[in-house]
Amino acid sequence: MNFQFSDNVAALQPSAIREILKFTGMPGVISFAAGNPAPEAFPTETVAQISADLLREDPILAMQYSITEGYPALRNLLKERMTAEKAFCEGKDELIITSGAQQANELTCKVLLNKGDTLICEAPSFIGSINAFKSYGVNLFSIPLESDGMNIEALEEALKTQPNCKIIYVIPNFQNPTGGVMSLEKRKALYELACRYDVVILEDNPYGDLRYDGENVPSIKSMDTENRVVYSGTFSKILAPGFRVGYVSGPAEIISKITVCKQVSDVHSNIWAQAVCERFMRITNMDEYLANLRNIYRRKRDIMLSEMKTSFSKKISYQKPQGGLFIWCTLPDDCDMNAFCKKAVSEYKIALVPGNAFLINESDKTTSFRMNFSTPTDEQLIEGTRILGAMSKEVLGE
Amino acid sequence: MNFQFSDNVAALQPSAIREILKFTGMPGVISFAAGNPAPEAFPTETVAQISADLLREDPILAMQYSITEGYPALRNLLKERMTAEKAFCEGKDELIITSGAQQANELTCKVLLNKGDTLICEAPSFIGSINAFKSYGVNLFSIPLESDGMNIEALEEALKTQPNCKIIYVIPNFQNPTGGVMSLEKRKALYELACRYDVVILEDNPYGDLRYDGENVPSIKSMDTENRVVYSGTFSKILAPGFRVGYVSGPAEIISKITVCKQVSDVHSNIWAQAVCERFMRITNMDEYLANLRNIYRRKRDIMLSEMKTSFSKKISYQKPQGGLFIWCTLPDDCDMNAFCKKAVSEYKIALVPGNAFLINESDKTTSFRMNFSTPTDEQLIEGTRILGAMSKEVLGE
Repeated sequence: MNFQFSDNVAALQPSAIREILKFTGMPGVISFAAGNPAPEAFPTETVAQISADLLREDPILAMQYSITEGYPALRNLLKERMTAEKAFCEGKDELIITSGAQQANELTCKVLLNKGDTLICEAPSFIGSINAFKSYGVNLFSIPLESDGMNIEALEEALKTQPNCKIIYVIPNFQNPTGGVMSLEKRKALYELACRYDVVILEDNPYGDLRYDGENVPSIKSMDTENRVVYSGTFSKILAPGFRVGYVSGPAEIISKITVCKQVSDVHSNIWAQAVCERFMRITNMDEYLANLRNIYRRKRDIMLSEMKTSFSKKISYQKPQGGLFIWCTLPDDCDMNAFCKKAVSEYKIALVPGNAFLINESDKTTSFRMNFSTPTDEQLIEGTRILGAMSKEVLGE
Repeated sequence: MNFQFSDNVAALQPSAIREILKFTGMPGVISFAAGNPAPEAFPTETVAQISADLLREDPILAMQYSITEGYPALRNLLKERMTAEKAFCEGKDELIITSGAQQANELTCKVLLNKGDTLICEAPSFIGSINAFKSYGVNLFSIPLESDGMNIEALEEALKTQPNCKIIYVIPNFQNPTGGVMSLEKRKALYELACRYDVVILEDNPYGDLRYDGENVPSIKSMDTENRVVYSGTFSKILAPGFRVGYVSGPAEIISKITVCKQVSDVHSNIWAQAVCERFMRITNMDEYLANLRNIYRRKRDIMLSEMKTSFSKKISYQKPQGGLFIWCTLPDDCDMNAFCKKAVSEYKIALVPGNAFLINESDKTTSFRMNFSTPTDEQLIEGTRILGAMSKEVLGE
């Protein structure tokens, strides 16, 4: 049989950068291309103990059908935590558990946008979200990212001119892929524009707890006097991505529609994992736990940065990220970034992610690439950065 | 802010039968309205042991990101099992793990149908799937179900006349809600029609392992010489629905597109649960295990049927289901089924599911309702059926 796929799905082309990424798993390759938590960051013994207790005390809870909204005790803990951060308003907002923040972002798009409506995002932005939005046939429009967030003039122009703008999607903290933080001023300006043009903001915050230097910037949700911000979070970066436990909160009406869509998508998220997350939050001193996690990643970031400083050609520019898992590097304008990344992996066995992977149109030009410091071992961080540095000097000069 | 939801999602109305179902959780209510496995059917100790071993031996596997296709060892076991049942053809078919069969059915629709295309299903059919299909704005058309499956003439007429028919969705074994089995003759006729009109068959088989009497009927997938059958299965009815582990197999091209859509939906399914399912299948004698499970449910079915035989008004008709979890009852034509179900729950505290919950248009008339025998205790089965029987004689006469 010859299959004809739906228009939206047929348009989801396999990525051209797969050719580069397929080298990643090959023996001997040092991968700076992942975004996985460090293996040593997993609280394996605590999780094993919690799981054993849970499966002894209440095995049926962990195995039987549960409700779509998620495990009530976990929802309550998250609401409390977010209320303390002024990111949840009892009575106006609701919160449900999702299968990772991926599902939170996908379903927010599904409930709000018709095919052809516009969703505005950052350029570059997280590829998983971009593809989720594409799978609903929406008109994606991206706004150039500056070191302190979206270009606000370009955003206003897009809100004025793009058809049926419904959502502005942003990752304000330690953005993937750039590692940048949106300034307080730009958060305020963004919120004002969303009010003026009557659109929803989807604030995706997977890395918010992973700040290594500087001060936290208030979330956009905390400014949400008009109740138009949807906020997604996850346990993937602070506990275990394999659990697939995320959450989405925001205007109760929107969360109610997301719940209907989640029910038809997977009924509910794995309930064992939800119960493990709840007990983990309840019995752990989360401030201490997160401080320790930040220590692990700060160290790894600094190892990579220190080696970059001594090894890299001075023609590669980058900023020290204040948090998150990534360093965003930019080659000189006249440089062929894809050739650089291809050479790195095929000749030097160092895997990077070419920056065009994070653009709406992969064929658009960029000279940036993304490096990850959370997944490699210390030795791989040093050796890989040194090798890449030597190659960069060979290609670009000192 | 006033929200405008997408057309597809706005059309997903909260069900009118919620009014009846909301009584279900009230104290003192005996619920025949669920579809949950029996608590005593869960192999809690084995699962606890497997989980403990897994979290001791390879905790990172259970916590780290995994691949979208699913845990390779589990996929291989499922492919082997399905190959033995002639329901998987190496080289032509592929298989991926999904977050329950719910996701398998939803994504099959998402990859194949544009808004307005037609999906043909049984009347009545599983409400979870119907709503998933509705959430993509497809044209749903349902074919009356007879005791041996769809009316084949009506199916052919629909294939001729409905616009852009792409999928025929069927639950051939112990259908939800009717409990019926599609005969071999009708499976063959259905397959022939699918070939003639060039449509995909989506064969949903959550209850296939739960046959209590009679002989297995070959799956439609086992007849699939033209490679046009997508087959979905699940661990929900045989191991633990709370795990949310299902699978979908079929033409490699379709599975490849489903994988792309699953990636943007939830990246992958909870990996701990996938690994637990794999070890469970590997270390358990599955034939013995399933035989024991069938003994549990056969007993429960027979308790309910026996009590129905002595208590129910003779004006209620039903068939003895050969498997599955449900008994489908039909009141006389002139009877108000919704009033009957409402009276049962509000006055007698017995919850049933009104049959119109399983129709594409809930406002269509039916005099049937669904009873479940897997979730209640033995005492509840006896007492609830006796009370309902007394009510039925009061309403309908002996």
